Parts: sequence; C-alpha cells; structure tokens
Amino acid sequence: MAGCCAVLAGFLFEYDTPRIVLIRSRKVGLMNRAVQLLILAYVIGWVFVWEKGYQETDSVVSSVTIKAKGVAVTNTSELGFRIWDVADYVIPAQEENSIFIMTNMILTMNQTQGVCPEVGGFSGKRLGCPHPRGPVSPVPVGVATGRCVPFNRTTKTCEVAAWCPLENDTYVPKPAFLKAAENFTLLVKNNIWYPKFNFSKRNILPTVNTSYLKSCIYNAKTDPFCPIFRLGKIVASAGHSFQDMAVQGGIMGIQIKWDCNLDRTAAFCLPRYSFRRLDNRDTEHNVSPGYNFRFAKYYNDPAGIEHRTLIKAYGIRFDVMVFGKAGKFDIIPTMINVGSGLALLGVATVLCDIIVLYCMKKRYYYREKKYKYVDDYEQ
Amino acid sequence: MAGCCAVLAGFLFEYDTPRIVLIRSRKVGLMNRAVQLLILAYVIGWVFVWEKGYQETDSVVSSVTIKAKGVAVTNTSELGFRIWDVADYVIPAQEENSIFIMTNMILTMNQTQGVCPEVGGFSGKRLGCPHPRGPVSPVPVGVATGRCVPFNRTTKTCEVAAWCPLENDTYVPKPAFLKAAENFTLLVKNNIWYPKFNFSKRNILPTVNTSYLKSCIYNAKTDPFCPIFRLGKIVASAGHSFQDMAVQGGIMGIQIKWDCNLDRTAAFCLPRYSFRRLDNRDTEHNVSPGYNFRFAKYYNDPAGIEHRTLIKAYGIRFDVMVFGKAGKFDIIPTMINVGSGLALLGVATVLCDIIVLYCMKKRYYYREKKYKYVDDYEQ
Amino acid sequence: MAGCCAVLAGFLFEYDTPRIVLIRSRKVGLMNRAVQLLILAYVIGWVFVWEKGYQETDSVVSSVTIKAKGVAVTNTSELGFRIWDVADYVIPAQEENSIFIMTNMILTMNQTQGVCPEVGGFSGKRLGCPHPRGPVSPVPVGVATGRCVPFNRTTKTCEVAAWCPLENDTYVPKPAFLKAAENFTLLVKNNIWYPKFNFSKRNILPTVNTSYLKSCIYNAKTDPFCPIFRLGKIVASAGHSFQDMAVQGGIMGIQIKWDCNLDRTAAFCLPRYSFRRLDNRDTEHNVSPGYNFRFAKYYNDPAGIEHRTLIKAYGIRFDVMVFGKAGKFDIIPTMINVGSGLALLGVATVLCDIIVLYCMKKRYYYREKKYKYVDDYEQ
Repeated sequence: MAGCCAVLAGFLFEYDTPRIVLIRSRKVGLMNRAVQLLILAYVIGWVFVWEKGYQETDSVVSSVTIKAKGVAVTNTSELGFRIWDVADYVIPAQEENSIFIMTNMILTMNQTQGVCPEVGGFSGKRLGCPHPRGPVSPVPVGVATGRCVPFNRTTKTCEVAAWCPLENDTYVPKPAFLKAAENFTLLVKNNIWYPKFNFSKRNILPTVNTSYLKSCIYNAKTDPFCPIFRLGKIVASAGHSFQDMAVQGGIMGIQIKWDCNLDRTAAFCLPRYSFRRLDNRDTEHNVSPGYNFRFAKYYNDPAGIEHRTLIKAYGIRFDVMVFGKAGKFDIIPTMINVGSGLALLGVATVLCDIIVLYCMKKRYYYREKKYKYVDDYEQ
Repeated sequence: MAGCCAVLAGFLFEYDTPRIVLIRSRKVGLMNRAVQLLILAYVIGWVFVWEKGYQETDSVVSSVTIKAKGVAVTNTSELGFRIWDVADYVIPAQEENSIFIMTNMILTMNQTQGVCPEVGGFSGKRLGCPHPRGPVSPVPVGVATGRCVPFNRTTKTCEVAAWCPLENDTYVPKPAFLKAAENFTLLVKNNIWYPKFNFSKRNILPTVNTSYLKSCIYNAKTDPFCPIFRLGKIVASAGHSFQDMAVQGGIMGIQIKWDCNLDRTAAFCLPRYSFRRLDNRDTEHNVSPGYNFRFAKYYNDPAGIEHRTLIKAYGIRFDVMVFGKAGKFDIIPTMINVGSGLALLGVATVLCDIIVLYCMKKRYYYREKKYKYVDDYEQ
Repeated sequence: MAGCCAVLAGFLFEYDTPRIVLIRSRKVGLMNRAVQLLILAYVIGWVFVWEKGYQETDSVVSSVTIKAKGVAVTNTSELGFRIWDVADYVIPAQEENSIFIMTNMILTMNQTQGVCPEVGGFSGKRLGCPHPRGPVSPVPVGVATGRCVPFNRTTKTCEVAAWCPLENDTYVPKPAFLKAAENFTLLVKNNIWYPKFNFSKRNILPTVNTSYLKSCIYNAKTDPFCPIFRLGKIVASAGHSFQDMAVQGGIMGIQIKWDCNLDRTAAFCLPRYSFRRLDNRDTEHNVSPGYNFRFAKYYNDPAGIEHRTLIKAYGIRFDVMVFGKAGKFDIIPTMINVGSGLALLGVATVLCDIIVLYCMKKRYYYREKKYKYVDDYEQ
C-alpha cells in the first residue's frame, strides 16, 4: 500500500525530460534550423494556408430546376407552316436535373397495327422469308410474317407485322429541323445545401435583382452569375458547333462548381459554370452516335381504331451536374495536421544527427558526448 | 567485411534509449501530467469517442421510388364537375428521385396552328407591326405577322402565328385549382447501399408490418419511421403554408439522412426525415417564382387537323434527397489518429521544459542538469 | 540589444540532440528492431502500398444515357394481335439515370368522367352510403355519391363519381403480359469525370470497335466491357427470375464502379458492372410490393367528350448507379501518413523501455544509467 503510494507520488510529482547535448556548431546549428524551417513552412504554408488542412469538408446536396424558352418556325411540305413552342420540343415536360430540347426529328404519321414491307431491303434471316439475302434492319421494329412483298417498284422486301407504315430513318434531316433552337434559352435554378454545416445557397444571388434576371444572358466574362444560358453559347463554350450537334443530337453537361470556404463570409461562396460535351463523337469506337429516342402520340380515329404518330426525336440533353466541397474550421483535421507536423519536425533532428555523428571530422568526439555505452552481453 | 558485420551487429544488438533527467518537483510534475491528461482526453474522448476517428467512412448510394395517392374534385364552368386522380395530376407518370404533383393550372383548350391576336397589348417591336408601343409578351409564344388586329372591343394587338388561341396566364387561379392536394399522400421507398462495406438497407424497416404501413402517416414524434407523408404536413414542417405554395408552385426537399455506425448492429442504422423548401420566394432577387411548366395533350379532329390542349401546370415538385455517411472501424484512420495523438503528447514535454528552464527560480540549476555543452566553434 | 543577439546566436548556432544510453543487449536490441520493423511494415506495406495512403481521392461525377431495343408480340381477346415497340413500353420516353420497361399492365379503356359502381364491394364508410359493411377500396379513385347501385347480378356497391368504368386491378396477369421483355436489350452509355484531376472517361472503351459494339452482349466473363445488357441476364445476375419479377414489377440496380488509380495509365481505369435488386420482396414488412404506376392516354371523341385509356403499368425500372473513387499522388496525405508513421515508431522505444526498466534482471542498473535524479521538493 505504501509502495503503491510511492509509485503514484513518483508518477505524479516527478517530471522527466530528456537530457540534451548542446553542440555549439554554426554549421550544424544553421542546418538544423534550416531543415526545421522548411518543415514548418511546408506544414503552415502548404497544408494550412494553401490546402486548408484545418478545415473539415462536406459534399454538396443539390436540387435543380430548368426552364426553356423560345419559339421555332418550320415550313415543310409534310407539316406545312408550323410554330414549335416549349410544350412541343421539351420531352418529357419536366425532369429532375436535365432537360431535353428536340432539335431534329423523323416523323412517321398515322401508324396503325398491321403488316407492311420492311424498309431498306430483305431481311431473310427471320421466320423463313424466302429471300435470304440482303441487309437486316438493325433496329427490330416488328415480326416478319415470312411473306415477301413489293417495297417499291423495283425491290421486294420481307413483310413484317408492326406499327405500319414503318419508320424510315435512313436519312436524317440536315440541317436540323429545329435549327432555330440555337437561340433558345435555359433558365437554370440551383439550390445547394451542405448538411454538415447546415449552409444553403441559391445560384440566383441576392446581389442581382429581378430586372437584371429578366434580360441577362450568361457570359463567362461579363455576366458570370446570370443563370440564363443561350443554347448556342453553351455548345460553343464546349468547343463544338451547335448546328452540327443539332443534327444527330448529343449530351451537354452544364457543370456548376460550388467550392466554398465557410470560414469566410457566405458572399464569397459563388457558383462557377463550365460546359462539357458528354457524348462520344469518335465514330470508330461508338454505337448509335448522338442522342435520340422514340416516342409516340396516340390517337383514336372516329371508327375507334388506334393510330399513333411515331417521332424519332434527335436533340440535345442538357445535364446539370452540381459538385463541390465546402470547408470549415474543425479541431480534428487541425490536430491531425499539427500532430503530423510535429512528428515531421523530429526528422530535422534525425538528419542532423546523421551528419554530426557520421560525416563530421569530430564525429568520434560527438558520439562520445551523445552516447553512453552500457554493456550487457549475456556471455 | 568484418567492419560491415560489426556495424550490423551494432545495429541489431544495441538498444538506444534517451537519457532522462528526472526532476522531483511537485509543481512541474503535476503540470506535466495535467497537460498530458488534457491531450489524452482530447485524443480519446473527442477524436475517438465523439468523432469516431477510428472509423473509415463511405458515402451513400441510393435508389428512390415515390408513389402518390389521392383524389381531388373540381367544379368549374369550363370543365364542369371533374375528378382528378393520380394519372391526371402526376406529370410525368414516374421519375427517378422526385415527383411532381400538379396543384394549379391554366388550361388553353383546342389550340390549332394559326394566327391570332397577341394577349396583353401591342408588341410592336417585332417584324414591323405598325403599333410600336405597349408591352411585349415576355414569353415568346409565336411569330408576329406584322398585322394589327382587334384583341377585344377596345384594344388592338399584334397578330402572331402560333398555336391559337393563345394562352392567357395573366391571372393565376387563387385559391389553387387542386387545393385538395393538401391531403394527398406520398409513399417514399428508399433503398440505400454503402458499397465499401457492402451494407444495404431500406427505409421500410423490418420492425414494421404491412398492416401498420397501410394505415400510418409520418409524424416526427409519433411515427418517425412511417414512409407515407401527407403533402400538407411536409410543407407545414418546412414552415410554409400549403395553400400559398399551391398557387404558384414550388420545390420541396424531402431529406433522408442515413448516418450509420456499422460497428453497432444494423438495427440502429435508421433514416431521419426532414423537410426544406428549395425554391426562392424572395421576389426582389428572383425570376419566374414558384414552379411551373407547360405541356400539351395532342388530338386529331375528325378532319385530321391536329389540336392540342395546352396546360401550364403549377405544382409542387418533391425532391427526395438522400445523404449520409456510414462509419466502420478501420486500422488506417485509427493509426493516423494514434500517431498524431502520440506526437501531440510530446507537446506536454515541450511546454513543461519551457516553464522549467525559463520561468522557475532554479532554472540555471535545471539547465545545467539537462544540457551538456560541447563547443565546436571553428575559429 | 547585445543580450538579444546572444540569444539569437544561441538559437541559430547551437544544435541540441538528445543524449542516448546505448545498451549493448542482444535481447532488447533485437526486440526493438523487430517492433520497429513491424511498424515500418505496417506503414509502408499496408498504408502506402495496399491502401494507397499517399493518394488524394475524388468522387465521380457521372452522366448516363440508356437506350432500349426489342419488340414483343401479344395476342389477347381485348387488344387482338399487337406489336409492342420501344415507343410503347418505355415510359417516359427518356429519363436521366434510369429507364422503365413495362412488362405487365392492367388496361382500362374508354374511361370518361361519370358515375359508376365501385369495384370489389361496399365502401360504406364514405359520405353516407347506406351499406356500411364490407371492404373499402384501398386506392381512392373517386368520390362516393351516397347511392347504392348494382355492381353485378349478385352484389351492390357504392356509387362513385370518377373516371368510369373503374379499373379492376384485383387480378394481375400472370405470366406477365410482355414476358418477351426478357430478351430486350439496354445500351448504357456512361461518361464519368473526376473534377479534381480533370480526368474523364467513357464506358465505351477506345479499345473496342463499332462492329463489336453492334453485336456484343454483356457477359461478366467473356464480354465484361460490352455496354449492352440483356434484361433477362441482368435479373438473373442478381439472383432472381425475370418472369417472376415481370408480373409485379420491381427495381433493378445496374451498378457501375469506377475505381481508378490515376498514377497508372488511364487504360487501367475500367468500369465494373454489377447488378442488385433494389425493391423489397419481403411481404411481411412491405406495402405495394413490386413497382407500378398509373398513366393515361387522353382522347377526344367526335362529340368532343374527353376519354382516356388508363394504364396501370407494372414493370422493371433499371437504375444506373455510378460510384467510385479516383486516387492520385498528393503530398498532403503522404506527409500525414509519414508523420503518423514516425510518431508510431516512437512506440517501439516506449515498449522496449518498459521491458528494460521494469522487467529485466539488471533493471536497477539500467535505470541508474538512463535517469539522473534532481531533487526539488519545496519543503
């Protein structure tokens, strides 16, 4: 019991500090301080000031709404003079983080369930059609009946049960049908939230007013915080031609970067927009280039028979991609970096020790001072 | 060769440990232990117990399905007595992480391609219309023909080629057309996955049974794990009025937080729901407040002419935002924190050394004991 | 001033290094080196080589497009012989990260606004219907008028104002209506981006050519990088039966994992596909199992009365979930790990000290050599 108390007293009331050899040498002294300075500069300058190692980070949680605006006029033999507004070219009418603007289309009107000759040649491989040569339609549209019927005056093709007449997408209109879409605009509203810091902000900044928002168009230099984008400019900013892209369609990324230092005032936490084309144009390593999909409008004729208008819609899908990190001072990463920095400071002593004890002339003298030898060989 | 062996033997068979001065001083001893205790308490208590610094973390991968339920009745002169069910007010019928519930609408029936007078005044700026005064329609709906035609008995407006008659959205119905939507319910199913730990869970917990799920409504206090939400309550929880929001529409965030400590049993990994309004109501710094979009239903009349019913749908989009972190014991962050903690313990010695060697009365005596001076001035 | 200079000279030109006791003991020496080796092996082997602790990481930003292909044939008394193509079974026509393939349906044709008897029994609880017994329809479809009308020859049900006739979803077709969907294929295009490293890649690899892409089908062993998936195989890979799943619908996750070591060449950064079923099949703890939603096609009959075809669509929603981390060498995490490793090396000395000073026979002799006692008791 008394022994225990003595140990506890020893533990509490004794202070142990290493014994130090203080070598009065300019060379080694300066070198030691220089190495320590380098390490300190790295820890403070790089880790703390530049990389903000004292901050805890959080990833962004985001919500996006997109609204298109614009009218296009077309005048074709098939459809006549026709106006296209938002309800016509945005499909579907609303999505979560993206919007599809139809720029080109292949229209197949008045399809009904029936049988008709396949487009584009024989497809003899199916269901015993007696004409086993020629290309097969790559997109399955129906089921071959096995009969062979005239497609036009010169060629016969395989008959298929399908929505008839079949779509003929051999030729994609060029220039694009709705080439006027270049001047349409997108209004992108983005609300972000950093849950760890309970910090939220909108891309419509409190510093801009409604009249500005009603007339502005985004421009990286003059209007970097205007949330209204002209389609042609988006594509041009990514280094592509809108009219080329409009023919086959494609995917454009509207990237919004929110890098926020929440130790500063919220007014410095600003969105940065950039644009990138996301689909592959490399025809060598690609399948179904561009972007298109098929949808149909269904009708009942007076006799009650179902008709549909099939539309193969080519267009540009604009994906809004929101990313970013927020940082705020936190004790844990600070202490981890301080601790690591202190440990790294020990490297200075190790380096100098090597030089003093192995490289200098007086090394034997120093070793004698630093070390005290205690022999304990069992033999 | 022999020298090499000697060095290796020295390296392997010698053990070097620092020489220590043991100062028997109550003051310094206690202070040293106190500082060490503080650092230990921080490392163990804060870093390990509170912030779980021994855990590796992973972000959530999530999948959401939402299903709405409810019926509304309206009785207007234009549409008569009418029932609205899910297929009528959810647009589009399914989305990935969100659902749009139409609460208000401006209906423009029987539009056809044609020419008609513009709504709301002259728009003389376009295509040489001879009436160059008056407001211009802010939303482009068509192309001015240049003629000036009577809009009603007193005013003349610019004629436009468009889907006619034009939509008149000057007055938004108030109260909202489908104000009964307040009592609709949403069933939110959420499946989460932490790929690093291969841990997955659903927000329909294994502890609740089907009969409970068929009758429950989410309530933060009494039914915190019921995945069925009443629209009115969601908006109220975010501090807003459903009937106000229903008029112009808006965006509501249903936030599901999955913070899971996977060192404990999976039963403690539970979803936490919260609600937040995501659109900006500040009219000073806003453009197109609320949330609305236009879509059309297309018809062919018996003569084959295409008609459409244009609907400007105002409504509330519910975005389900899933976020969270899972943590599980891992050796790397543990060791990083242990290493940093050890390095920080060294701070105690540095602090006490400063006091002992610079502040205490007997400082010269202590310095003499701690330091051994070795001169090596080159001169 | 002179004193200040002396202090500065002392600070700059003096080098302090701890005094060391060098104990020549095979046992302790070897133990010390062994512990140091273990710690080094952990730091280098585990932290650096295995866990790549020298890398900074970034999370993936992704964009996905999905295209379905395939034709199904059905032959029922209600609809007759009918072909179903992409425009018929993909609803909505395009989404951002997912695609819904309808596999089963309950069709209610020619609905109009009106009154009709409720399906499936009395629902007396509503609006004073005089038959207060029997089950209530779980899904609200209309508003009870309070009258009681014959449903069929034997039973009377409550009359409701609704879209009439009402849907009868008591029996779900089994096998699934579009069971041929098992052979449909999905083409998934995925573009990823690591913003921190400005590295982007597509899941259509530059090493595959167009002719391969036109004919390949994903197979985990033989074609792991083909982006075309057969629906039946996706479901089978997740351990489920497509035909079972097609009846009630469900959610399948197509998981794409991009774990990239950007210190190596980009060719090694490859997508890994895996498949998981995301909906709950546990009928005990579930509500509305499977996946379905209702949508309607609207028609105007010659008299101008609005009709609709209500479709309760059961089907499989394929959610593409992209996740992954990219790592690249960075000085900060390297230094944090080096610093922590150095601090951990100190543990070896602490452990050996304990053995030498408390466990060995000669411990008093060693203590005497290591420690120098300085008394400073105030009394």
